[in-house]
Amino acid sequence: MNDALLLELAELLGADRVLTDKATRAQRAVDTWPLRLVQRTVGAELPGPRCVVRPHSADEAAAALRVLHARGVPVVPYGGGSGVVGGAQPPADAVALDLGALDQILHIDEENLTVTAQAGVMLGKLEVWLGKKGYTTGHYPQSIDLAQVGGLVATRSAGQFSTKYGNIEDMLVGLAALLPDGTPVRLGPVPRWAAGPDLRGLWLGSEGAFGVITEVTLKIVPKPAARRLQAFALPNMRDGLMVIQGMLREGWRPAVVRLHDASEAERSYPGVTNEGEALLLLLSEGPNTYVIAESEAIAAIASAGGARPLGPGPVEKWLEHRNDVHLFDQLISMGIIVDTIEVAAGWDRIGEIYDRVTAQIRAEVPELLVISGHSSHSYPQGTNLYFIWAAQPPQDPAEMERVYWSVWNRVMETTLALGGSIVHHHGIGRLRAPWMARQLGTSFPLLAALKQTLDPRGLMNPGALVTDTGGREEA
Amino acid sequence: MNDALLLELAELLGADRVLTDKATRAQRAVDTWPLRLVQRTVGAELPGPRCVVRPHSADEAAAALRVLHARGVPVVPYGGGSGVVGGAQPPADAVALDLGALDQILHIDEENLTVTAQAGVMLGKLEVWLGKKGYTTGHYPQSIDLAQVGGLVATRSAGQFSTKYGNIEDMLVGLAALLPDGTPVRLGPVPRWAAGPDLRGLWLGSEGAFGVITEVTLKIVPKPAARRLQAFALPNMRDGLMVIQGMLREGWRPAVVRLHDASEAERSYPGVTNEGEALLLLLSEGPNTYVIAESEAIAAIASAGGARPLGPGPVEKWLEHRNDVHLFDQLISMGIIVDTIEVAAGWDRIGEIYDRVTAQIRAEVPELLVISGHSSHSYPQGTNLYFIWAAQPPQDPAEMERVYWSVWNRVMETTLALGGSIVHHHGIGRLRAPWMARQLGTSFPLLAALKQTLDPRGLMNPGALVTDTGGREEA
Repeated sequence: MNDALLLELAELLGADRVLTDKATRAQRAVDTWPLRLVQRTVGAELPGPRCVVRPHSADEAAAALRVLHARGVPVVPYGGGSGVVGGAQPPADAVALDLGALDQILHIDEENLTVTAQAGVMLGKLEVWLGKKGYTTGHYPQSIDLAQVGGLVATRSAGQFSTKYGNIEDMLVGLAALLPDGTPVRLGPVPRWAAGPDLRGLWLGSEGAFGVITEVTLKIVPKPAARRLQAFALPNMRDGLMVIQGMLREGWRPAVVRLHDASEAERSYPGVTNEGEALLLLLSEGPNTYVIAESEAIAAIASAGGARPLGPGPVEKWLEHRNDVHLFDQLISMGIIVDTIEVAAGWDRIGEIYDRVTAQIRAEVPELLVISGHSSHSYPQGTNLYFIWAAQPPQDPAEMERVYWSVWNRVMETTLALGGSIVHHHGIGRLRAPWMARQLGTSFPLLAALKQTLDPRGLMNPGALVTDTGGREEA
Repeated sequence: MNDALLLELAELLGADRVLTDKATRAQRAVDTWPLRLVQRTVGAELPGPRCVVRPHSADEAAAALRVLHARGVPVVPYGGGSGVVGGAQPPADAVALDLGALDQILHIDEENLTVTAQAGVMLGKLEVWLGKKGYTTGHYPQSIDLAQVGGLVATRSAGQFSTKYGNIEDMLVGLAALLPDGTPVRLGPVPRWAAGPDLRGLWLGSEGAFGVITEVTLKIVPKPAARRLQAFALPNMRDGLMVIQGMLREGWRPAVVRLHDASEAERSYPGVTNEGEALLLLLSEGPNTYVIAESEAIAAIASAGGARPLGPGPVEKWLEHRNDVHLFDQLISMGIIVDTIEVAAGWDRIGEIYDRVTAQIRAEVPELLVISGHSSHSYPQGTNLYFIWAAQPPQDPAEMERVYWSVWNRVMETTLALGGSIVHHHGIGRLRAPWMARQLGTSFPLLAALKQTLDPRGLMNPGALVTDTGGREEA
């Protein structure tokens, strides 16, 4: 260690908190951004951070930030590394601030129904711990066993049961964070207040660009008494979307509402649907009489919308395999380009986005192997679309990005053209940053001003979230 | 008009947009802050704004702001004037920007269930308009016929049906606003995104301190199919609070959940409860089978908690008289000090706040005539308390403020000491501003930084929301 910065950090925090070995740095060279993973598979070297600082307390994290800030060193907060948009890929000379050792569950408040945990606690671990006491957060993203609670707040996570329990912004009641210079701030917890703008909102989706979340307090709920599963076949995606819209419009909130297109239905639930049919998965939970009322009502709405009941089987299968991404990992290990792109829009345009995106990618991207889509997070105001696609890698690895962006560009541009949101819950990171200015429009300068105010030296996760390039040019 | 500013504004916007007559200025000298109203009753002169600018479009509002900003003139956005914390009381030399002529309902989107209206539309008018089409916002604050939709967003309003429909932050899907220099910004509408911090949050609770909201898009819902009313008598407030907590804990969300203490029960529902009993009012609405399930379940929880059923009568009476404040107005016209103070806290401490506040005020404020309280906005994490009190005015009008603040100080200090929130939904304004730094603690500098960023010259509603005095000294 012949670097003055590393020596200072090691002296301050202890040498075991400052990791410089090649393997650790390589692990922190990217998160789960598929483009980078497949590039690495085919031989690309990803430059890791200058070092990985792994504090064991918020105080240690603050001390590290003070040093890094004083020296003007860029910092990338690194959580579970489950992000898929490059939010944790360090720029040159950056230090990774690894939150993984802030892994203590601090307090359950059974009277006010909250749990407080350090930012580095894995959500899966928290859920097991809560489950033994009869509680849950109701937050089950696919990354549940990979993601840390601080990262979930910083990226505006959405879980698979979001239609009932809400997204992470609906669950956060308090947090502690560090500003770029190490100054600690604490917000809430309060049930509700009208004391100015809710400053917790600054940290929801901050993606490490404003500071570092060190602790979160989340709502919990007693485990529901009853649950009922129902699946239906629909003639097509548009009919399925209308059925979901109808359920929400009437005021029902099934915890799980998933509509898979024919391609996904055939791939993941072979033999369940007929050719061309979409597959609707529904899960109701809560008090027993509530579940009865809701499941009967939504079944009636589905039937009236042309649905054919399939029983609980497909939902059971989904519950069992919902977080299994081994096929994805396999494809990446074979050097195949594979990724997910999720967007959102109002009911009036979501069907059009689905139709246009799938048709356009199939027609215009010759390397495409497959594209499919589903809706998995619905609101009375609209829903999301989650596209899964794979493409043949080009012979020349240098061509990889051209193929990759030819798909991304089309989805982003079509979504923007139709007035949708370029992201529902995967965040911006480095991948989507080029489209942020167009997504936010006249409000983008507000975001830039917040960044300037909270991180005037631009040291926190530079290159993520806030840039202003107006999209990517077609490669 | 011999003032260069007034001449410039009149030339730019037309003389009819720039009101300088004494009556209009006097009307805009305060909102509905009871202290100022009673002071005026006993002879105080409240200085009005320098003039009232009343734009007829967002463009006119922007033009006015450009002039005022260039000249460094303080601006107080003035909505319906229904605020009760002095948020719209102009400081010396300020101009009132009256949003009342931005009164057009712009668009209903029946597919995405939203309505878009100019900021100055009265909520009551919007509800009547929506009602004819079969919709509602679900937002019914007591000020429904006095408040404008922009003001409701700017003050983080809560409605009487909030337990089901949420508060204004749960309803806002988009808005247009003007920065202090007149620059327009537009946010959303989107069903949900993860594109950085939700910048709509900056405007929820901004209280005119960051700029001027000119247009809002709110969620709407089809009018519910069914409704059921139930009232119960409880032995005391603490038992009633436990019953509410139990209902929410089990996952039920009655639209209306109100618990009135014995003093309010006797005053407003004479003969309904026995001496000392609290009165619980419940209203369930939604699809018919949902209403049946919920109303039966919550009745069972109430009975198990020691409640005595009273039928629907008291809830019917409440629905009929809920926005009637004539007694309040009468007392003020008699020169009696009367006010409301509402706070919030977790379930573990809300009973203690109720007990301490009522006992302390009764014991320590000799001028007190009455203090009562109710809980009207509940969450699984806690609830609010809404105190109503009146005090004998001192002989010497100059002593009015001493009596007034002797009550306020005690409620604020007790709430802060017990870790509650000094405000649930009435906002900060000028009344609560002295306690903001202590309420927000380490996060107060973040709010101050936002103010500095968005309004660097400090021209927007100076004196409201963001100050830093650490509370009020006992007079």
